[in-house]
Amino acid sequence: MLSEEILYQLLDIMPVARLGLLDGVGLPEAMPIVFARVSDGLFSPIDGKPKSSAKLARIKLIENQPKGTLLLDHYHDNWEQLWWVKMDIEATVISMEHNLWDQAVSGLRAKYPQYHSVSLFKDNPTMIGVRWTRVRWWASNELKGIKRWIETRVV
Amino acid sequence: MLSEEILYQLLDIMPVARLGLLDGVGLPEAMPIVFARVSDGLFSPIDGKPKSSAKLARIKLIENQPKGTLLLDHYHDNWEQLWWVKMDIEATVISMEHNLWDQAVSGLRAKYPQYHSVSLFKDNPTMIGVRWTRVRWWASNELKGIKRWIETRVV
Repeated sequence: MLSEEILYQLLDIMPVARLGLLDGVGLPEAMPIVFARVSDGLFSPIDGKPKSSAKLARIKLIENQPKGTLLLDHYHDNWEQLWWVKMDIEATVISMEHNLWDQAVSGLRAKYPQYHSVSLFKDNPTMIGVRWTRVRWWASNELKGIKRWIETRVV
Repeated sequence: MLSEEILYQLLDIMPVARLGLLDGVGLPEAMPIVFARVSDGLFSPIDGKPKSSAKLARIKLIENQPKGTLLLDHYHDNWEQLWWVKMDIEATVISMEHNLWDQAVSGLRAKYPQYHSVSLFKDNPTMIGVRWTRVRWWASNELKGIKRWIETRVV
């Protein structure tokens, strides 16, 4: 059992996840995203990283089909340290009116010092909000593997 | 332009990719895979990593809908080093009769010394074969970023 506590720790520490959506013709599409957690929601900005026009495409995809998948996984040459967490998710495109907007912005700035030099938003401030409906996980070394990964990251 | 030469180098070095498929009801599913390249095809074994029953599920998904996406990406705290390569793919489930089987097995053993201690196959030897039909890429620092990543890996 992956407890909420461990899941939250993972989400707070993990810098990148892969978001799976449907493309315009209903085929799989995947992209790496950065994100911050606020309570039981995740927020990923359409940020100012250079020339990343694909980021805008994802807004259309979400408006078309909000259901997707979010994969957090850890690759290591030592295969006893492999693990993944897979979430069935629903994504929404949100603007500054969202009630958790300010907390999400603070969360992103706290998690990613990179936003001191990269703009958090491009054009109209927009984020992708993510809620999960189901969580599956696997770890080569069972839950110990995930817990150990968290421990090595929070020191 | 991402040349075939650079793409092949990336595929030969990159230890992990994320495979996006459709699940049983046509929604996105994603999973990390290991793979080796032979010519212009990729091969990923249904291997003996412990308790990874999801690996067998992917066979059904591919039989249902062979079209998917394969994402190779590099996360780094220095966002000037970020890049991704996204391939539209067609996957097939292949057995030992496949004409590139032996080369694929050799390629996997050469790329992953871990297969000295982990079985390359579980039960009936089976691999997922992947061919790509389209390649898109993005790099924070344009092609230089991808080339530099390759250079740091091959020394």
